[in-house]
Amino acid sequence: MSKTSHTVSVKSGLPPASLVHVGEKHGYVHAITVINYNTETFRKKTLTSIDEVHALVTDDTITWVIIDGLHDVRAVEGLGQLFNIDGLVLEDILNTHQRPKLEEYSNFLYIVIKSLALVNHRKITVKYEQLSIIILKNVILTFKEKPDTVLDVVIERMAVENSPIRQYGADYLAYLIMDAVVDEYFTLQDRFDEFIVNVEDELLTNPTPKTLYIIQKIKRELIYLRRTVTPMRELFKILQRSNSAFIQEDSRRYFGDVYDHSIRISEAVDSYRDLITGMLDIYLSSISNKMNETMKILTVFSSIFIPLTFIAGIYGMNFHYMPELEWRWGYPAIWVVFIVVTIALLAYFKRKNWL
Amino acid sequence: MSKTSHTVSVKSGLPPASLVHVGEKHGYVHAITVINYNTETFRKKTLTSIDEVHALVTDDTITWVIIDGLHDVRAVEGLGQLFNIDGLVLEDILNTHQRPKLEEYSNFLYIVIKSLALVNHRKITVKYEQLSIIILKNVILTFKEKPDTVLDVVIERMAVENSPIRQYGADYLAYLIMDAVVDEYFTLQDRFDEFIVNVEDELLTNPTPKTLYIIQKIKRELIYLRRTVTPMRELFKILQRSNSAFIQEDSRRYFGDVYDHSIRISEAVDSYRDLITGMLDIYLSSISNKMNETMKILTVFSSIFIPLTFIAGIYGMNFHYMPELEWRWGYPAIWVVFIVVTIALLAYFKRKNWL
Amino acid sequence: MSKTSHTVSVKSGLPPASLVHVGEKHGYVHAITVINYNTETFRKKTLTSIDEVHALVTDDTITWVIIDGLHDVRAVEGLGQLFNIDGLVLEDILNTHQRPKLEEYSNFLYIVIKSLALVNHRKITVKYEQLSIIILKNVILTFKEKPDTVLDVVIERMAVENSPIRQYGADYLAYLIMDAVVDEYFTLQDRFDEFIVNVEDELLTNPTPKTLYIIQKIKRELIYLRRTVTPMRELFKILQRSNSAFIQEDSRRYFGDVYDHSIRISEAVDSYRDLITGMLDIYLSSISNKMNETMKILTVFSSIFIPLTFIAGIYGMNFHYMPELEWRWGYPAIWVVFIVVTIALLAYFKRKNWL
Amino acid sequence: MSKTSHTVSVKSGLPPASLVHVGEKHGYVHAITVINYNTETFRKKTLTSIDEVHALVTDDTITWVIIDGLHDVRAVEGLGQLFNIDGLVLEDILNTHQRPKLEEYSNFLYIVIKSLALVNHRKITVKYEQLSIIILKNVILTFKEKPDTVLDVVIERMAVENSPIRQYGADYLAYLIMDAVVDEYFTLQDRFDEFIVNVEDELLTNPTPKTLYIIQKIKRELIYLRRTVTPMRELFKILQRSNSAFIQEDSRRYFGDVYDHSIRISEAVDSYRDLITGMLDIYLSSISNKMNETMKILTVFSSIFIPLTFIAGIYGMNFHYMPELEWRWGYPAIWVVFIVVTIALLAYFKRKNWL
Amino acid sequence: MSKTSHTVSVKSGLPPASLVHVGEKHGYVHAITVINYNTETFRKKTLTSIDEVHALVTDDTITWVIIDGLHDVRAVEGLGQLFNIDGLVLEDILNTHQRPKLEEYSNFLYIVIKSLALVNHRKITVKYEQLSIIILKNVILTFKEKPDTVLDVVIERMAVENSPIRQYGADYLAYLIMDAVVDEYFTLQDRFDEFIVNVEDELLTNPTPKTLYIIQKIKRELIYLRRTVTPMRELFKILQRSNSAFIQEDSRRYFGDVYDHSIRISEAVDSYRDLITGMLDIYLSSISNKMNETMKILTVFSSIFIPLTFIAGIYGMNFHYMPELEWRWGYPAIWVVFIVVTIALLAYFKRKNWL
Repeated sequence: MSKTSHTVSVKSGLPPASLVHVGEKHGYVHAITVINYNTETFRKKTLTSIDEVHALVTDDTITWVIIDGLHDVRAVEGLGQLFNIDGLVLEDILNTHQRPKLEEYSNFLYIVIKSLALVNHRKITVKYEQLSIIILKNVILTFKEKPDTVLDVVIERMAVENSPIRQYGADYLAYLIMDAVVDEYFTLQDRFDEFIVNVEDELLTNPTPKTLYIIQKIKRELIYLRRTVTPMRELFKILQRSNSAFIQEDSRRYFGDVYDHSIRISEAVDSYRDLITGMLDIYLSSISNKMNETMKILTVFSSIFIPLTFIAGIYGMNFHYMPELEWRWGYPAIWVVFIVVTIALLAYFKRKNWL
Repeated sequence: MSKTSHTVSVKSGLPPASLVHVGEKHGYVHAITVINYNTETFRKKTLTSIDEVHALVTDDTITWVIIDGLHDVRAVEGLGQLFNIDGLVLEDILNTHQRPKLEEYSNFLYIVIKSLALVNHRKITVKYEQLSIIILKNVILTFKEKPDTVLDVVIERMAVENSPIRQYGADYLAYLIMDAVVDEYFTLQDRFDEFIVNVEDELLTNPTPKTLYIIQKIKRELIYLRRTVTPMRELFKILQRSNSAFIQEDSRRYFGDVYDHSIRISEAVDSYRDLITGMLDIYLSSISNKMNETMKILTVFSSIFIPLTFIAGIYGMNFHYMPELEWRWGYPAIWVVFIVVTIALLAYFKRKNWL
Repeated sequence: MSKTSHTVSVKSGLPPASLVHVGEKHGYVHAITVINYNTETFRKKTLTSIDEVHALVTDDTITWVIIDGLHDVRAVEGLGQLFNIDGLVLEDILNTHQRPKLEEYSNFLYIVIKSLALVNHRKITVKYEQLSIIILKNVILTFKEKPDTVLDVVIERMAVENSPIRQYGADYLAYLIMDAVVDEYFTLQDRFDEFIVNVEDELLTNPTPKTLYIIQKIKRELIYLRRTVTPMRELFKILQRSNSAFIQEDSRRYFGDVYDHSIRISEAVDSYRDLITGMLDIYLSSISNKMNETMKILTVFSSIFIPLTFIAGIYGMNFHYMPELEWRWGYPAIWVVFIVVTIALLAYFKRKNWL
Repeated sequence: MSKTSHTVSVKSGLPPASLVHVGEKHGYVHAITVINYNTETFRKKTLTSIDEVHALVTDDTITWVIIDGLHDVRAVEGLGQLFNIDGLVLEDILNTHQRPKLEEYSNFLYIVIKSLALVNHRKITVKYEQLSIIILKNVILTFKEKPDTVLDVVIERMAVENSPIRQYGADYLAYLIMDAVVDEYFTLQDRFDEFIVNVEDELLTNPTPKTLYIIQKIKRELIYLRRTVTPMRELFKILQRSNSAFIQEDSRRYFGDVYDHSIRISEAVDSYRDLITGMLDIYLSSISNKMNETMKILTVFSSIFIPLTFIAGIYGMNFHYMPELEWRWGYPAIWVVFIVVTIALLAYFKRKNWL
Repeated sequence: MSKTSHTVSVKSGLPPASLVHVGEKHGYVHAITVINYNTETFRKKTLTSIDEVHALVTDDTITWVIIDGLHDVRAVEGLGQLFNIDGLVLEDILNTHQRPKLEEYSNFLYIVIKSLALVNHRKITVKYEQLSIIILKNVILTFKEKPDTVLDVVIERMAVENSPIRQYGADYLAYLIMDAVVDEYFTLQDRFDEFIVNVEDELLTNPTPKTLYIIQKIKRELIYLRRTVTPMRELFKILQRSNSAFIQEDSRRYFGDVYDHSIRISEAVDSYRDLITGMLDIYLSSISNKMNETMKILTVFSSIFIPLTFIAGIYGMNFHYMPELEWRWGYPAIWVVFIVVTIALLAYFKRKNWL
C-alpha cells in the first residue's frame, strides 16, 4: 500500500498524453516475450527490441505480446504505433496508479487490472502490480510493471501438447489471464482467514499493543484491497454483459465465472472488516478486564492489611493508662484479632468471587 | 464457517471447466437415489451406478435424481452427459464454495442454494451444505455434498398415498425442496432468538470474557449467514418473477412465498446484528461498572482506616512532653475519636450511596 | 416482540397451503361480526356460525365481515370458499408471522398490516396483532388475531346517523381501517418521545445498570417496530399509486395520506435509534465520570493522610539520640507541621478543582 | 423539537378530512393580510374577516393572501371555498405536523415548508413553523402558524417603488417566499458553525458532563433539522424540474437556486453529525486522560510515602536488641535513607514523565 | 474550512440576482489577463479595464479571459454584458460559497470548481478557491477569487513555441484548467498519506491529547474535502457524457481522464476516514493501556510495603508480655521475614508479567 505514498502527484504540471512512466521504479531488466499459438502450434520467443514484434504477428495464429517492466517508454510507444493504440491509453499503461477499468475503443478493448503478490506471509504485506491488457483481433498485449510469475501458469498450461485452451480465441486468453490474477486473490483470502483466526486467539489469550498495531495494519490492507477489488468486480460485470466485437458470445459465460469469483472476494473483504471491528471491541474490553484484575489485587491487599496495621497502631500508642497492654494474654489475644479480621475479609472477597 | 478457511484457493492453477471436487471431503458413501412419481405412482430406487439412471427416466412420470456426495466426479460427469448439462455448470456443482445463484440455460435452470444444519445446539455451530438443483422438463436433479435428512421431509410427504403434491409439475418439486431448505433457517432463527436472550441475561448477571467470546462467535456466524441468505433472497426474487419455460406461471406464487420467508430471515439477521452491537455496549459498561465497584470498596477501606492509623500514629510518637499521654481518660478518649471518625466517614459514604 | 421467539418454525415439515393456525393462541372466544351499510342504512350483527354470512351479503349495501380470533380454522376456510379466496391467502391469514404486504389477485386485494397496542405504558411493552384485510367489490373481510378495540373507532363513526363516511365505497372503508391502525402508531410515538426524555434525564442524574437494560429494551422494541413499519410504508406507497380495480381513483389520495403518516413514523423510529446511540455514549461516559470521582476521593484521602502517618512514624522511632523528642515544644511543633502539610495539600487539590 | 411531543396523536379517532387545528396553540391574534401588486401598483390591506378577501382579488394584479395563525378554522375553510381548495389540503394546512411536501392539483399547487427561528441563540433552541403555500393562477395563499417576521423581508422588497420583483408572476413570489425561508437556515448554519467550534474548545480545555449534555442536545436538534431539510430538498428538486402549469419555464432556474441552497444546508447538517461523533470521542478520551492523571498523583504519593513509613515503622519496633537504635548517628543516618529513597523514587517517576 | 463560518448568511434579505460579492475579501489588486492563441500565435495581455476586452476577441484565435479577484463587481458585470451571460450566473460567480456544479445554457456552459492550496504543510491547512469557468464558442472565461499560480502551469505550457496544445479547441483548454486544478488534489493526497503515517507512529509511541486534537482537525478537513470532491466528481462524470455543443466528441475522453482522477481522490478520502476511525480506537486503547501501567505500579508498591509495614507495626506494639521482643535473634529474624515476604511478592508479580 505504501507504494502510492510518494508518487501520485509526480505528473502534476505535465501536459496530458505525454508518455512518462509514473510509478515505482523496479529496476528490473525490460523483457519482451511474444507467444504465437493455434490448435497445432505453440511458439515462444524473447525479444530484445520492439521492432522484431511486427514480423511475429501472423494471421493464422493468436499472438500474445508480454511486456515486463515499463521504464522503457519507447517500447510501449513502439507497440502503440504498431497496433494503432490511442495515446491516452499508452499514457494510462505507463501510469501504474490507475484504477481497474475497461475502455472500449473502435479497434481494441483496454483493460486495467491489479495482480497481487503476498510479499511477506507472516505480516500479510501485499504488493500490487498493474496489469494492462489490450484485446485486439487475434492479438493480446499485456503490460506488466515487472517480471514475475503471475502469468506463468497460463503459459505453462498453453504449452502443453494439444492443450484444449488453444482452440479458443484471443478473448479466452484474456479470460485465462484475469482468472489467474483473481486466483491470487483467493490465496490472499485464505491467508487472511488464517491470520484473523490467529489474531483472535492472541486477543483472547495475550492482547498487547502490538496486536492492536497488527489489527490496524490489516485494516489498512483491507481498505486498499477493497479499493482494488470493487472496480475489478464492476469491470468483470461489464465484460460479462459486453456485446463488444472483441468478446465472443460464448466467452461471456467465462467472464461471468470470474465475476462470481470477484463477488466472493469482495464479500469476504466486507466480512473481514466486520470481524476486525469486533476484534477491536474484544481488545478494548480485554484491557478493561485486565485493569479490573489489577484493581482487585490492589483492593484485596489494601483492604486486608490497612485495618490490621491500624489495630497494631493502636497498641503502639504510648498512653500511660492502657489496661490491655498489661494483660497477660493481651499479645496472644491481638493475634487472634489479626487472624479473625483476616479470615473475615478473605471470606468477604471470596464471596465476591475475587479470589 | 471455518470450512471455507483452507480450500478456496485449491483450484488455483487449474484450467477452467476441469471437473474436480473442490470442498470439504466428507468421506460418506456416495449414493444415487431416483424417484419417479405421477398422480398415481410413486417409485423410489437406490442405484449403485449412474448408468442405471437412463433407464428410469420415463415420459409419464416426473423423475427426481438425488446425488449424495460429490467426490465421485464421474457420477456427476455421467449425469451431465445424460441430460446434456453444460461443463461449467458441472464444475460449479463440484465446487462447494459457490454463492447461491440462478442461471438460465436453454435446456435447463441451474440453481445453487445452501441448506443448513445446526451441528451443536448449545454453541450454535452451523454447518452449511451446498445443494445444486437442475430443473429440466419433468426431471429434477439435486446434488448434495453428503447424505443427510434435509430432503427426507419432501420424500416422505410425496410417498403418502394420493399426496396432492404429486399433481404438480417438476417446478413445484423444486419449490418443495427450496421450502424445506428455508424452513431449516427458521429453526436456526428460533435458536438464535433463544440464544441471544440467554446471552443478554448472562451479560446482565455475570458477564465474563467468555461471554464476549461467544458474542464474537455469534457475530461471525451471522456474517456468514448473511452472506448466504442475501443471494438466496435475490435468487427467490428472480424465480418469483421469472418467465422461464421451466417455471409454470401458477408456481411463481409459491416461489413468492419462499421469497417472503427469505426476506423475514434476512430481516431477522439484520436485527441480530443490531442487538449484538447493543450487547457489546452492555458488556463494556458492565465491566466499567464492576471496576467502579472495586474502586469503591478500595476507597471506603482506605479512606476509613488511613486516617485512623494516622491518629494512632500520633500517640505512638515518643515526644517527652505529650500531655495527652498522661491523661487518665486519654486512652478511652482516643477510642471515642476513632469511633466518631469512623461513623462520620461511614455516613459520608452512605450519603454518596456507596454502601 | 417475544411472541416471535418460539413459533416461527412450527410449520416446518408441513406441505404448503395446508390451513393451520400458526401464531400465539389467545384463547379468546371466536367472534364473527357482519356490518351492512349504505348512505341510509347501518346494520350490525354478531353471528355464531360462518354459514349465516352468505345471507347477509346484499347488492345494495357494503358488507364488512370481521373475524376476531383465528384458531377456528374452519371459519376462515368457510369464508374463503364463500368469497372464492385463494388457498395460499387463507394460509397466510392464519399464519400471524407475515410481514405487512399487499397482494393483488384477479378477484380481490389482499393486505396484511400489523396493528399495535401498548400493553404496559410504563415499560413500553408493545403487542402486535396481525390484521388481514381482503378488499372485494362492495365487501371487506377483516381477520384479527383476537377481539380488541382497534376497529371500534371505525364502527362507531360509521354508526352515527347519516355519517358522511357511508357515502364512500369499500376501498374507503379499507382506508379507514388502515388509518385507525396507523393512528395507534402515533400514540406509541408520543409514548416513546416521553419515555426517551425520561430516560435521558435519568441518565444525567442517576444512571444505573437498570437504565442500560431499559435502553437495550427500547432498542429491541425499535428494531421490531422498524421491521413492522418499513414494509407497511412500502405497502401504502403501492396502494397510493395502485391502479387496481378495487381502489377508486379518488381514494388514492387518502392512501397517500396514510403513506405520509407512515413516513413520519418511520422517520421518528430512525431518530429514536440515533438518540439511543447517543444515550449509550452518555451512559458510558457517566460511568467513567463516576469512577473518576471515586478515584479522586481515594486520592485526596490517601495523599493527605499517608504523608502525615509517615511523619508520625518518624517520631515513633526508638533511636536513643533523637534530639527533637526532648524539645519542650517538639510535640506542639509537630502539630504545626501536620496542619501546614494538610493545608498545603488541600490547597493543591483545591487548585486542581477536585474539592 | 419538543413541540412534537404531545400532540401527534391528538387526532386519533377523528374522521379524515375533518377540519381541526392540530398543533401547538400560539394564542396569537388571528390576522389576514392581502397584498395586490403589479408593475405599477402595490396595495396592502389587513382584514378582519375572510369575507372581504373576495372583493380584493383582481384580474390585473397578483394577489397574495397571508393568514397568520391557524386556530380560526373557519377562516381557512372560507378561503378554501373561495378558491376551491380540496378538503384534504385544508386539513393538512391545519395540521402543523406535516412533512415538507409538494402536491399538484388540477387547479393549484400545494407546498408545505418549514420556516425556522432561533429562539435562544446561546443554546441553539430552534422553533419550527409550518408554512403552507398555495399557488393558483395570479394568486398566492400563505398560511402561517403565527404572526412573525419571516415574510416581512419579501413584503418590504416588494413595496419599494418600481421594484423589479413586481414584473414577475405568482410563481416568482412563491420562489421569493421559499428563498426567504431557506435564508433562515443559513443563519442557523452560521450559528451551528460557531457553536461547534466553541464546544470543541470547551472539550479540549474543560470538559464537563454538561458539555456532553449540550452535545446530545445539538445531536437532537440536528436529527430534527435533518428530518426537515431532507424533504424540503426533495421538494425543491421536484419544483426545479416541474412542468406544472403554475410554474413558468423561466422560473425553474430560480427554484434550482433554492435547490442548490438546500443541498448545501443538507451537506452541512451531515458534516455536523460527523463532527459531533468526533466530539464524543474527544470527550470520552479526555475523561480517561483525567482519570489517568488522578491515578498518577495517587501512585506518586503512595509509592513515595508508603516505603518511607515502612522504614520508620522498622525503627519503631520494640525489640530489645536493635543495635542501630543505640548508634550515635543512627537517627541522622535514617534521615539520609529517607532522602535518598525519596530522590530515587522522584527520579523514577520523572523518567516516566509523570512529574 | 473556517472561511465558511461567518459569511454564508450575508446575502439574507437581498433580492435574488443582485450582484454582490459574497465571500472572503482578499484585498488583492484586481487583474484582467487576456490570452489569444492558435496554432501559430500566442499573445498575452494584462488589461486595466474590462472595456478593452472586446477589441481583443478575434475570430481566428481562441480567447481566454482570466479575472483575478472578484471584489470589482463591475468588471464581472461588464464581461457578462459583453458575452451575454445570464444574470443568475454572474451572481453565482460572485458568491464564492457555490458547490462545484455544471450548468448548460443555450449560449455557454457554466462550470464551478474549487481549486485548492496547502497553506501550511505541517498542519495540513487547506485553502479553497472558487474557480468559475465559462465555455463559449472559441472563448473561455475564468473567474478566480484572487491572483495565484494555479493556472500558471497551463499558460506556461501554452506559451511554448508550437505547443501541441494550441491545436485543440476551447473545450480542451477548459480540460487543461480542470486537470491542473485536480492535480493539486493529488498533491494534497500525498501530504495526507505522509501525515497519517506520522500521526499513527506518534499514536503508538507517544499519544497525547494534542494528537487527538490533530486527528479531529484532519477529520474536519476531510469532511470539507469530501464535500468539495464529491460534486466535482459528479460534474466530471456529466462532462464526460455530455453531448453539449461546446464539448467536442473527441474531448470527452479527456474529461473521462479527469473523472478517473476525481474518483481516485474521492476513494482516497474515504480511506482516510476509515483509517482515522482506527486511529481513534488506537488512541483510546493506548490511554487505557497507560492507565493499566500506572495501576500496576501502584499495586506493586502498595502490595509489597503495606504488609511489611503491618509486620513492623506488630513489633511496635507496647504489650508487656511480648516474648519475641526479648529474643536475642528477634530483630535479625524479623529482617529475614521482611526479605522473604518481599521476595515472595516480587515473584508473584513477576509470574503475573507485571515486572
